[in-house]
Amino acid sequence: MKNTFGNTITLTIFGESHGPAIGGVLDGLPPGLKIDEEDIRKMNDRRRPAGKTGTARREADRLEFLSGVKDGYSEGTPLAFIIRNTDVKRHDYDALTGIARPGHADYSAQMKYLGYQDASGGGHFSGRLTAVLTTAGAILMRALEEKGILIGTHISVLGGIEDQKLDTLDPADQLRELRGKQFAVLNEEAGEKMRMLIEQTAEQKDSVGGILETGIAGLPAGIGEPFFDSLESMLAHVLFSIPAVKGVEFGSGFGFAEMKGSEASDPFALRDDRVVTLANHNGGVNGGISNGMPVTLRTAYKPVSSIGKPQKTISFEKMEETEIEIQGRHDPAIVHRACAVQDAVCALVIADMLAVRYGTLWLKGGCE
Amino acid sequence: MKNTFGNTITLTIFGESHGPAIGGVLDGLPPGLKIDEEDIRKMNDRRRPAGKTGTARREADRLEFLSGVKDGYSEGTPLAFIIRNTDVKRHDYDALTGIARPGHADYSAQMKYLGYQDASGGGHFSGRLTAVLTTAGAILMRALEEKGILIGTHISVLGGIEDQKLDTLDPADQLRELRGKQFAVLNEEAGEKMRMLIEQTAEQKDSVGGILETGIAGLPAGIGEPFFDSLESMLAHVLFSIPAVKGVEFGSGFGFAEMKGSEASDPFALRDDRVVTLANHNGGVNGGISNGMPVTLRTAYKPVSSIGKPQKTISFEKMEETEIEIQGRHDPAIVHRACAVQDAVCALVIADMLAVRYGTLWLKGGCE
Amino acid sequence: MKNTFGNTITLTIFGESHGPAIGGVLDGLPPGLKIDEEDIRKMNDRRRPAGKTGTARREADRLEFLSGVKDGYSEGTPLAFIIRNTDVKRHDYDALTGIARPGHADYSAQMKYLGYQDASGGGHFSGRLTAVLTTAGAILMRALEEKGILIGTHISVLGGIEDQKLDTLDPADQLRELRGKQFAVLNEEAGEKMRMLIEQTAEQKDSVGGILETGIAGLPAGIGEPFFDSLESMLAHVLFSIPAVKGVEFGSGFGFAEMKGSEASDPFALRDDRVVTLANHNGGVNGGISNGMPVTLRTAYKPVSSIGKPQKTISFEKMEETEIEIQGRHDPAIVHRACAVQDAVCALVIADMLAVRYGTLWLKGGCE
Amino acid sequence: MKNTFGNTITLTIFGESHGPAIGGVLDGLPPGLKIDEEDIRKMNDRRRPAGKTGTARREADRLEFLSGVKDGYSEGTPLAFIIRNTDVKRHDYDALTGIARPGHADYSAQMKYLGYQDASGGGHFSGRLTAVLTTAGAILMRALEEKGILIGTHISVLGGIEDQKLDTLDPADQLRELRGKQFAVLNEEAGEKMRMLIEQTAEQKDSVGGILETGIAGLPAGIGEPFFDSLESMLAHVLFSIPAVKGVEFGSGFGFAEMKGSEASDPFALRDDRVVTLANHNGGVNGGISNGMPVTLRTAYKPVSSIGKPQKTISFEKMEETEIEIQGRHDPAIVHRACAVQDAVCALVIADMLAVRYGTLWLKGGCE
Repeated sequence: MKNTFGNTITLTIFGESHGPAIGGVLDGLPPGLKIDEEDIRKMNDRRRPAGKTGTARREADRLEFLSGVKDGYSEGTPLAFIIRNTDVKRHDYDALTGIARPGHADYSAQMKYLGYQDASGGGHFSGRLTAVLTTAGAILMRALEEKGILIGTHISVLGGIEDQKLDTLDPADQLRELRGKQFAVLNEEAGEKMRMLIEQTAEQKDSVGGILETGIAGLPAGIGEPFFDSLESMLAHVLFSIPAVKGVEFGSGFGFAEMKGSEASDPFALRDDRVVTLANHNGGVNGGISNGMPVTLRTAYKPVSSIGKPQKTISFEKMEETEIEIQGRHDPAIVHRACAVQDAVCALVIADMLAVRYGTLWLKGGCE
Repeated sequence: MKNTFGNTITLTIFGESHGPAIGGVLDGLPPGLKIDEEDIRKMNDRRRPAGKTGTARREADRLEFLSGVKDGYSEGTPLAFIIRNTDVKRHDYDALTGIARPGHADYSAQMKYLGYQDASGGGHFSGRLTAVLTTAGAILMRALEEKGILIGTHISVLGGIEDQKLDTLDPADQLRELRGKQFAVLNEEAGEKMRMLIEQTAEQKDSVGGILETGIAGLPAGIGEPFFDSLESMLAHVLFSIPAVKGVEFGSGFGFAEMKGSEASDPFALRDDRVVTLANHNGGVNGGISNGMPVTLRTAYKPVSSIGKPQKTISFEKMEETEIEIQGRHDPAIVHRACAVQDAVCALVIADMLAVRYGTLWLKGGCE
Repeated sequence: MKNTFGNTITLTIFGESHGPAIGGVLDGLPPGLKIDEEDIRKMNDRRRPAGKTGTARREADRLEFLSGVKDGYSEGTPLAFIIRNTDVKRHDYDALTGIARPGHADYSAQMKYLGYQDASGGGHFSGRLTAVLTTAGAILMRALEEKGILIGTHISVLGGIEDQKLDTLDPADQLRELRGKQFAVLNEEAGEKMRMLIEQTAEQKDSVGGILETGIAGLPAGIGEPFFDSLESMLAHVLFSIPAVKGVEFGSGFGFAEMKGSEASDPFALRDDRVVTLANHNGGVNGGISNGMPVTLRTAYKPVSSIGKPQKTISFEKMEETEIEIQGRHDPAIVHRACAVQDAVCALVIADMLAVRYGTLWLKGGCE
Repeated sequence: MKNTFGNTITLTIFGESHGPAIGGVLDGLPPGLKIDEEDIRKMNDRRRPAGKTGTARREADRLEFLSGVKDGYSEGTPLAFIIRNTDVKRHDYDALTGIARPGHADYSAQMKYLGYQDASGGGHFSGRLTAVLTTAGAILMRALEEKGILIGTHISVLGGIEDQKLDTLDPADQLRELRGKQFAVLNEEAGEKMRMLIEQTAEQKDSVGGILETGIAGLPAGIGEPFFDSLESMLAHVLFSIPAVKGVEFGSGFGFAEMKGSEASDPFALRDDRVVTLANHNGGVNGGISNGMPVTLRTAYKPVSSIGKPQKTISFEKMEETEIEIQGRHDPAIVHRACAVQDAVCALVIADMLAVRYGTLWLKGGCE
């Protein structure tokens, strides 16, 4: 059972939504990385719900470092941090004990943990755990940016409404623009329509899914391994552990199924002595290895499974069929909040793969 | 960077297409698994090109076991096997030395291996390496079947032509039907159209991509880890290392982006004291853990990058732009051959995850 | 850089002696293991200094579970725990900033962490971190005992004084006797002499080392891997990460250098239909795999490096030679406190290796 | 079951003594390492028996590279190699089928592999497998030497006869002297006595054990991790998987048990602006991390278990007691052959740990 990911830079994650705390241990960092709590706060703000587009529950993301940080810099020792769980309203969940909510992990978890799991609030499966991912990712994103590597994510599609696309040849400006945004879209009109759709969906006691698109610019060529830790494999591995993710594609992805080889070609060319491709259907990855072009990927998020409408289901406790109507506070959409999470996990994977090739110290500044 | 995958049952892969041999080391098998060379041959036949739908090059897949097998059964020690490379026609590749073929890993590999790589025939990136995956997978598929777990793959889409869909609630019969097929489709008419399209594409010196759909029936509930080794993460990790794969989705995958929560629901119910869901949008996985329903996934394959039409590109050796027209024998499509590969890697992942939960000996027959 | 150990059951450790907290994440536990805080307290009491034989500093080992425990049982999710650092007297260390204390990790750490490390109190190298090992180990020892596996450790040698030896053929009674003891010896007279020697050494402002001997009874045969995770390899790996350990041997260990093969023989025999050996020079391990006989090992602990006598050394901060006389509270010996630590790490390794063979659920009670 | 060791540079080992071949996959090498087959042959010659001091069986160590090598340099892809098993005389083992030879892994293996193992010649436990270790090690030793890191091993004790000790402060000259030697001792007289003892022991149909001492000079400070992959932990992990190794100690090791802290001190000093210690009781490692001084370690080898004298034992096949007298060709000592093996595994560990800190490319020449 592996709650640790990575080869040289690793993240171990723990916590239940209604337990004492959630947290992580980030290991393999070089000494001397600036740990900027403002960066982390901003990243977590992009993840945390607020206003009309998210859950009413106010999640207090009060971060505490337990080890590995001294005077605002990483020591190089394992960096452990926790986020205490406060503002927990247990009564919203009592009526659901022993119930398998459709689309949720209640039943799967019951079969895995044999009844010993803390199910309230989703337990270890709660979207809240993503705060651990964004905290770790924020630390690494700053370091990557100082190495010229930019990561950014926008809402490509939400409930059928499409945003402007990323420039797959040169998205750097778009990526910079996105990171300051609470609701990350490139076209504000599209964003406005999306927000209205979210509100309507909330009134219908329903939910809506979407697709996020991430760009990674400035990654050197040569990163990845054909079998098995290809760049796509490593990114997909962590992306699929973000709750609600059900699909990952790179470059033209599933769109390739409709293309001929001649249409899908990325011809190489030279621009100022740099090797580039004139199209980027491959999303910056050939044979599992980066080719120096921007890495582009899209992730499919299913609609939130907790909806206010009545649903047929079972009680696995009593082994009988029943019906539920979920009360309380639930998100009609979480896709917009996941942008920060996606940035974070891509940063974790990229930093780790670069550390393997260039060494633990590289991310800090140089090499020996 | 790791050419070994798995936690308890692991596969290490090595080899270049034009080197002495390709092969693998399958470690962590229980003792006493039947190693049926007929099974392996059939699996590899599904992968190996023949007739009008594939490359003219006859790949001799003569398998040799070097260790770990005695009298037709696994010893439990590391099982190493090789497949010698014969029938290699080097002259087809000489003109391409130092050239970055569009869509191929030539340039990425040059940046990673600094010129020391064996580039001929695709080297370590060649689709030929998938024979190692099918060989390992064949060994595990038999053992899984004896435990009641069936895996099967068909061509969901090829160049726009669609096959009949898998029954996501109960695909067992379809999965059994598929494994005997050289060209794995559920609807023969669709299959005929696909074969004709492949021939036409070959005549146009072009190539075409597609989508494969895999079903896994009989997997117990409770398999997977929320973070980070979820069932989807582990399957996607290995699927993305199959050459040409550019997208992986589970259940409704990217289709979720158009659904409301109420449309995407999988209500639970009881059938003969068994817990089932009445729909299977989630592809048998909730919260990263299997729920007992069939696991369904789809994989996007880009069109083969080697096409006969002229293509603009560069010589990275001379650092100048150039044009190429690839001669020789190349596949217009490889999607149909990848069905066996996909079955194989899913078997590897599933067997490993079951071994972690139930122990090394479980796959053989029982437990202690 | 790996602060995580294990394959199926893993422990991640973090913390600095003078930081906010030390702690660990124990992952891969089966659900339903009893988490007995009394057990853990007793184990930590054996480790914690008290009275005349140890450091004056009162280490408050107030344990807090952050996740993975519900109503006194393991959930099966990652189990995170911390021990807050209180009662820290920083001023004892100020005079040593930038100084390389002989025998300590100050200089090594400076070279590894480039000055970013928290050096006070030994930082991440402090013996205090062993409280994380004993906490994790206590959880597993109870579960192993219920499976009939006993682990126990005594002080074999302290400053030249020898205890009675373990019965290498059947030490079960001795192992049970040892676990209740604060000062773990089999012969009380020898224990008394050892305690007196410790006091004398403290008065001399010096320190003394020793050898611990551990026995593991009831381990099934067949556990271990010839290359590379042999039973000896895995146990030695973790034992060598206990501060002050400089040697590990199994069975007759270094004593073998003086034996002929005929003298070192462990003849097999049958006793009540059980396979046993009539001698146990091999310490219960053949070819890296357990043979069912008790596993016996001895570990060498160097004398504590912090002594009150003046020592020549350098300031790496100023790059000049200097002399120091360490003030404050230091142990004249730590060997007797390490018995619990050694029990704990052996339990961690054994539990993990059994989980790999028999599955995650085995430790809880049965298998499926 | 882990037959793979390492984090960035890994070795996977496979093979049975009487199977088709033994071999390994060395992964994570940088591209462009010189693969000198002469180096490898010399290393294997030091391991292979010849003349009066070893087994009569002529082991043909004909090496074949299957992948990862092109024109005498590593490609950077997984490097697979095999050594075919020839000159196998199976009849020497027939009488031993189902017998548990004292000191051997027959019974342990039976319990682990449930009868499916190939037991002839020791199967996967044979000392012959160490040829895989020396082959991999030879490749890395050359690269390490070019980085200024020297590794050498001599026979410290054989059957009670002692060699001159290594200079623990500056052993570089001694290490260079040792590597050319077939029978690696520093004092030729002692070596002569050892050889005579081996012959006498052979005539007595007995065997004798010993202690090897290894020195590693030129290792930079800062290598290792306090918990759990300390330098001692990693070296010991692989050393203990060498057949017959039953003890590992660093620096003064078990000798510390007789020392006071004041006697065991390694004072720091400055020599030509370099930090050194004036003694080296700690064997170059403080807190699990290298301090720049030579790393010194000693390994205890038990006497070979196959002796010509009659031994009581059991047949586990028939579950009855019996007696055996082992015929055929067996070594009276293997310690002298293990020097090359010990050099090799230390090279593997050191190279891997340096690759983690400085990156995959460092070993080749520089960094980026």
